[in-house]
Amino acid sequence: MDDCIFCKIIKGEIPSTKVYEDGRVYAFMDINPIAKGHTLIIPKTHAGNLWEIAPEDLSAVHSAAKTIAGALQKALDAEGVACLQLNGRAVGQVVMHYHLHLVPRVKGAPELPISHWDLKPGDMKEIQSVAMKIAAEIQ
Amino acid sequence: MDDCIFCKIIKGEIPSTKVYEDGRVYAFMDINPIAKGHTLIIPKTHAGNLWEIAPEDLSAVHSAAKTIAGALQKALDAEGVACLQLNGRAVGQVVMHYHLHLVPRVKGAPELPISHWDLKPGDMKEIQSVAMKIAAEIQ
Repeated sequence: MDDCIFCKIIKGEIPSTKVYEDGRVYAFMDINPIAKGHTLIIPKTHAGNLWEIAPEDLSAVHSAAKTIAGALQKALDAEGVACLQLNGRAVGQVVMHYHLHLVPRVKGAPELPISHWDLKPGDMKEIQSVAMKIAAEIQ
Repeated sequence: MDDCIFCKIIKGEIPSTKVYEDGRVYAFMDINPIAKGHTLIIPKTHAGNLWEIAPEDLSAVHSAAKTIAGALQKALDAEGVACLQLNGRAVGQVVMHYHLHLVPRVKGAPELPISHWDLKPGDMKEIQSVAMKIAAEIQ
Protein backbone atom coordinates (compact mmCIF):
# COMPACT_ATOMS: atom_id res chain seq x y z
CA MET A 1 0.00 0.00 0.00
CA ASP A 2 1.33 3.38 -1.03
CA ASP A 3 0.91 5.15 2.28
CA CYS A 4 1.94 2.28 4.58
CA ILE A 5 5.26 2.84 6.34
CA PHE A 6 5.92 -0.90 6.72
CA CYS A 7 5.36 -1.42 2.99
CA LYS A 8 7.88 1.37 2.42
CA ILE A 9 10.34 -0.35 4.76
CA ILE A 10 9.96 -3.61 2.79
CA LYS A 11 10.60 -1.71 -0.47
CA GLY A 12 13.65 0.01 1.06
CA GLU A 13 12.10 3.46 0.74
CA ILE A 14 12.42 3.92 4.51
CA PRO A 15 15.59 2.58 6.15
CA SER A 16 15.36 -0.22 8.70
CA THR A 17 17.68 -2.48 10.63
CA LYS A 18 16.96 -5.92 9.18
CA VAL A 19 17.59 -9.12 11.09
CA TYR A 20 15.84 -11.65 8.85
CA GLU A 21 14.10 -11.93 5.50
CA ASP A 22 12.60 -14.69 3.39
CA GLY A 23 10.15 -14.88 0.50
CA ARG A 24 7.15 -13.99 2.62
CA VAL A 25 8.37 -12.07 5.66
CA TYR A 26 10.71 -9.27 6.75
CA ALA A 27 12.01 -8.78 10.31
CA PHE A 28 13.66 -5.67 11.68
CA MET A 29 14.37 -3.82 14.91
CA ASP A 30 11.66 -1.68 16.46
CA ILE A 31 13.02 1.88 16.64
CA ASN A 32 10.94 2.49 19.79
CA PRO A 33 12.16 -0.56 21.69
CA ILE A 34 10.66 -1.43 25.06
CA ALA A 35 13.60 -3.77 25.66
CA LYS A 36 16.97 -4.51 24.06
CA GLY A 37 16.36 -6.77 21.05
CA HIS A 38 12.74 -5.71 20.46
CA THR A 39 12.07 -7.05 16.95
CA LEU A 40 9.15 -6.74 14.54
CA ILE A 41 8.15 -9.40 12.00
CA ILE A 42 5.86 -8.41 9.14
CA PRO A 43 4.44 -10.11 6.04
CA LYS A 44 5.74 -8.70 2.75
CA THR A 45 2.24 -8.68 1.30
CA HIS A 46 0.23 -5.91 2.89
CA ALA A 47 -2.45 -7.05 5.33
CA GLY A 48 -3.86 -4.78 7.99
CA ASN A 49 -4.32 -7.36 10.70
CA LEU A 50 -5.05 -10.98 11.66
CA TRP A 51 -8.42 -10.85 9.95
CA GLU A 52 -6.82 -9.84 6.62
CA ILE A 53 -3.53 -11.76 6.51
CA ALA A 54 -3.30 -14.78 4.17
CA PRO A 55 -2.92 -18.13 5.99
CA GLU A 56 0.42 -18.83 4.27
CA ASP A 57 1.81 -15.46 5.39
CA LEU A 58 0.54 -16.03 8.92
CA SER A 59 2.37 -19.37 9.10
CA ALA A 60 5.50 -17.78 7.65
CA VAL A 61 5.48 -14.96 10.23
CA HIS A 62 5.22 -17.40 13.13
CA SER A 63 7.77 -19.76 11.66
CA ALA A 64 10.15 -16.79 11.49
CA ALA A 65 9.22 -15.91 15.07
CA LYS A 66 10.40 -19.34 16.21
CA THR A 67 13.71 -18.85 14.40
CA ILE A 68 14.20 -15.32 15.71
CA ALA A 69 13.20 -16.23 19.28
CA GLY A 70 15.96 -18.83 19.17
CA ALA A 71 18.40 -16.19 17.97
CA LEU A 72 17.32 -13.78 20.74
CA GLN A 73 17.98 -16.48 23.31
CA LYS A 74 21.46 -17.15 21.93
CA ALA A 75 22.51 -13.62 20.98
CA LEU A 76 21.21 -11.78 24.06
CA ASP A 77 20.99 -14.62 26.58
CA ALA A 78 17.27 -13.81 26.81
CA GLU A 79 15.50 -15.61 29.66
CA GLY A 80 12.12 -14.95 28.15
CA VAL A 81 10.44 -13.56 25.05
CA ALA A 82 6.98 -11.99 24.89
CA CYS A 83 5.17 -12.17 21.54
CA LEU A 84 2.51 -9.51 21.05
CA GLN A 85 0.40 -8.86 18.00
CA LEU A 86 -2.30 -6.16 18.07
CA ASN A 87 -5.33 -5.95 15.82
CA GLY A 88 -7.22 -2.67 15.72
CA ARG A 89 -6.72 0.82 17.10
CA ALA A 90 -8.98 -0.19 20.00
CA VAL A 91 -6.17 -2.35 21.38
CA GLY A 92 -3.31 0.00 20.53
CA GLN A 93 -2.30 -1.01 17.00
CA VAL A 94 -0.41 2.01 15.62
CA VAL A 95 0.77 0.89 12.16
CA MET A 96 -2.04 -0.72 10.18
CA HIS A 97 0.15 -3.45 8.65
CA TYR A 98 0.12 -6.80 10.52
CA HIS A 99 3.19 -6.99 12.78
CA LEU A 100 4.35 -9.33 15.49
CA HIS A 101 6.45 -7.86 18.31
CA LEU A 102 9.12 -10.11 19.83
CA VAL A 103 10.25 -8.57 23.11
CA PRO A 104 13.06 -10.37 24.94
CA ARG A 105 13.94 -9.99 28.59
CA VAL A 106 17.36 -10.71 30.01
CA LYS A 107 18.11 -11.43 33.65
CA GLY A 108 17.96 -8.26 35.73
CA ALA A 109 16.26 -6.16 33.03
CA PRO A 110 13.12 -4.25 34.03
CA GLU A 111 9.87 -6.17 34.02
CA LEU A 112 8.13 -5.84 30.64
CA PRO A 113 5.05 -3.61 30.69
CA ILE A 114 3.06 -6.02 28.55
CA SER A 115 2.93 -9.35 30.27
CA HIS A 116 1.47 -8.97 33.74
CA TRP A 117 -2.00 -8.58 35.03
CA ASP A 118 -3.81 -9.53 38.21
CA LEU A 119 -5.17 -13.08 38.21
CA LYS A 120 -8.76 -12.69 39.34
CA PRO A 121 -11.20 -15.53 38.61
CA GLY A 122 -14.09 -14.51 36.35
CA ASP A 123 -17.81 -15.28 36.63
CA MET A 124 -18.16 -18.84 35.28
CA LYS A 125 -21.72 -18.33 34.07
CA GLU A 126 -20.72 -15.33 32.03
CA ILE A 127 -17.62 -17.13 30.74
CA GLN A 128 -19.79 -20.05 29.57
CA SER A 129 -22.31 -17.75 27.96
CA VAL A 130 -19.58 -15.90 26.04
CA ALA A 131 -18.01 -19.21 25.00
CA MET A 132 -21.30 -20.38 23.49
CA LYS A 133 -21.56 -17.21 21.44
CA ILE A 134 -17.98 -17.57 20.17
CA ALA A 135 -18.32 -21.27 19.43
CA ALA A 136 -21.51 -20.64 17.47
CA GLU A 137 -19.56 -18.33 15.11
CA ILE A 138 -16.79 -20.85 14.39
CA GLN A 139 -17.41 -22.90 11.25
CA MET B 1 2.88 -34.21 30.65
CA ASP B 2 1.45 -35.68 33.84
CA ASP B 3 1.66 -32.56 35.98
CA CYS B 4 0.65 -30.00 33.33
CA ILE B 5 -2.77 -28.44 33.94
CA PHE B 6 -3.29 -27.67 30.25
CA CYS B 7 -2.55 -31.31 29.32
CA LYS B 8 -5.15 -32.27 31.94
CA ILE B 9 -7.63 -29.85 30.37
CA ILE B 10 -7.04 -31.42 26.93
CA LYS B 11 -7.61 -34.89 28.42
CA GLY B 12 -10.79 -33.70 30.15
CA GLU B 13 -9.35 -34.34 33.61
CA ILE B 14 -9.87 -30.67 34.48
CA PRO B 15 -13.05 -29.01 33.19
CA SER B 16 -12.82 -26.15 30.71
CA THR B 17 -15.13 -24.07 28.57
CA LYS B 18 -14.21 -25.10 25.03
CA VAL B 19 -14.79 -22.85 22.03
CA TYR B 20 -12.84 -24.73 19.34
CA GLU B 21 -10.94 -27.95 18.78
CA ASP B 22 -9.25 -29.68 15.87
CA GLY B 23 -6.67 -32.42 15.47
CA ARG B 24 -3.80 -30.29 16.75
CA VAL B 25 -5.23 -27.54 18.94
CA TYR B 26 -7.72 -26.88 21.72
CA ALA B 27 -9.21 -23.46 22.55
CA PHE B 28 -11.05 -22.52 25.72
CA MET B 29 -11.98 -19.55 27.87
CA ASP B 30 -9.42 -18.14 30.30
CA ILE B 31 -10.93 -18.42 33.79
CA ASN B 32 -9.03 -15.29 34.84
CA PRO B 33 -10.21 -13.08 31.96
CA ILE B 34 -8.82 -9.58 31.55
CA ALA B 35 -11.70 -8.85 29.15
CA LYS B 36 -14.95 -10.49 28.09
CA GLY B 37 -14.13 -13.20 25.54
CA HIS B 38 -10.51 -13.75 26.68
CA THR B 39 -9.64 -17.06 25.00
CA LEU B 40 -6.62 -19.38 25.18
CA ILE B 41 -5.40 -21.54 22.30
CA ILE B 42 -3.04 -24.41 23.05
CA PRO B 43 -1.41 -27.24 21.08
CA LYS B 44 -2.61 -30.72 22.07
CA THR B 45 0.94 -32.03 22.07
CA HIS B 46 2.77 -30.67 25.08
CA ALA B 47 5.39 -28.02 24.37
CA GLY B 48 6.58 -25.57 26.97
CA ASN B 49 7.03 -22.56 24.73
CA LEU B 50 7.86 -21.17 21.29
CA TRP B 51 11.30 -22.76 21.39
CA GLU B 52 9.81 -26.24 21.93
CA ILE B 53 6.62 -26.25 19.85
CA ALA B 54 6.61 -28.25 16.59
CA PRO B 55 6.27 -26.09 13.46
CA GLU B 56 3.04 -27.86 12.43
CA ASP B 57 1.46 -27.17 15.82
CA LEU B 58 2.60 -23.55 15.71
CA SER B 59 0.89 -23.07 12.34
CA ALA B 60 -2.24 -24.81 13.61
CA VAL B 61 -2.44 -22.57 16.70
CA HIS B 62 -2.20 -19.39 14.62
CA SER B 63 -4.60 -20.69 11.98
CA ALA B 64 -7.09 -21.30 14.82
CA ALA B 65 -6.35 -17.80 16.13
CA LYS B 66 -7.42 -16.32 12.80
CA THR B 67 -10.67 -18.32 12.92
CA ILE B 68 -11.37 -17.43 16.55
CA ALA B 69 -10.49 -13.74 16.10
CA GLY B 70 -13.15 -13.67 13.37
CA ALA B 71 -15.63 -15.27 15.76
CA LEU B 72 -14.78 -12.74 18.50
CA GLN B 73 -15.45 -9.91 16.08
CA LYS B 74 -18.83 -11.34 15.10
CA ALA B 75 -19.98 -12.73 18.45
CA LEU B 76 -18.89 -9.84 20.67
CA ASP B 77 -18.67 -7.00 18.16
CA ALA B 78 -15.00 -6.71 19.14
CA GLU B 79 -13.29 -3.60 17.76
CA GLY B 80 -9.85 -5.05 18.39
CA VAL B 81 -8.11 -8.22 19.52
CA ALA B 82 -4.71 -8.42 21.21
CA CYS B 83 -2.74 -11.65 20.75
CA LEU B 84 -0.18 -12.33 23.46
CA GLN B 85 2.07 -15.35 23.85
CA LEU B 86 4.63 -15.47 26.66
CA ASN B 87 7.75 -17.59 26.75
CA GLY B 88 9.51 -18.01 30.08
CA ARG B 89 8.80 -17.06 33.67
CA ALA B 90 10.96 -13.96 33.11
CA VAL B 91 8.18 -12.46 30.98
CA GLY B 92 5.28 -13.68 33.10
CA GLN B 93 4.47 -17.12 31.64
CA VAL B 94 2.52 -18.90 34.40
CA VAL B 95 1.54 -22.27 32.86
CA MET B 96 4.50 -23.94 31.16
CA HIS B 97 2.50 -25.22 28.18
CA TYR B 98 2.57 -22.99 25.08
CA HIS B 99 -0.58 -20.85 25.00
CA LEU B 100 -1.77 -17.94 22.92
CA HIS B 101 -4.05 -15.40 24.59
CA LEU B 102 -6.70 -13.73 22.42
CA VAL B 103 -8.03 -10.70 24.26
CA PRO B 104 -10.85 -8.78 22.55
CA ARG B 105 -11.91 -5.24 23.32
CA VAL B 106 -15.37 -3.89 22.59
CA LYS B 107 -16.25 -0.23 22.26
CA GLY B 108 -16.32 1.48 25.63
CA ALA B 109 -14.60 -1.38 27.49
CA PRO B 110 -11.57 -0.46 29.64
CA GLU B 111 -8.24 -0.12 27.90
CA LEU B 112 -6.38 -3.44 27.91
CA PRO B 113 -3.39 -3.53 30.27
CA ILE B 114 -1.21 -5.29 27.71
CA SER B 115 -1.04 -3.19 24.60
CA HIS B 116 0.25 0.26 25.46
CA TRP B 117 3.64 1.64 26.14
CA ASP B 118 5.35 4.96 25.62
CA LEU B 119 6.86 5.42 22.16
CA LYS B 120 10.38 6.63 22.84
CA PRO B 121 12.96 6.33 20.05
CA GLY B 122 15.90 4.09 20.94
CA ASP B 123 19.64 4.60 20.38
CA MET B 124 20.18 3.68 16.70
CA LYS B 125 23.79 2.56 17.25
CA GLU B 126 22.73 0.15 19.96
CA ILE B 127 19.77 -1.04 17.87
CA GLN B 128 22.11 -1.77 14.94
CA SER B 129 24.61 -3.54 17.16
CA VAL B 130 21.90 -5.77 18.65
CA ALA B 131 20.51 -6.48 15.17
CA MET B 132 23.91 -7.70 14.00
CA LYS B 133 24.12 -10.11 16.94
CA ILE B 134 20.63 -11.46 16.27
CA ALA B 135 21.16 -11.76 12.52
CA ALA B 136 24.40 -13.65 13.08
CA GLU B 137 22.48 -16.33 15.01
CA ILE B 138 19.87 -16.87 12.31
CA GLN B 139 20.72 -19.71 9.97
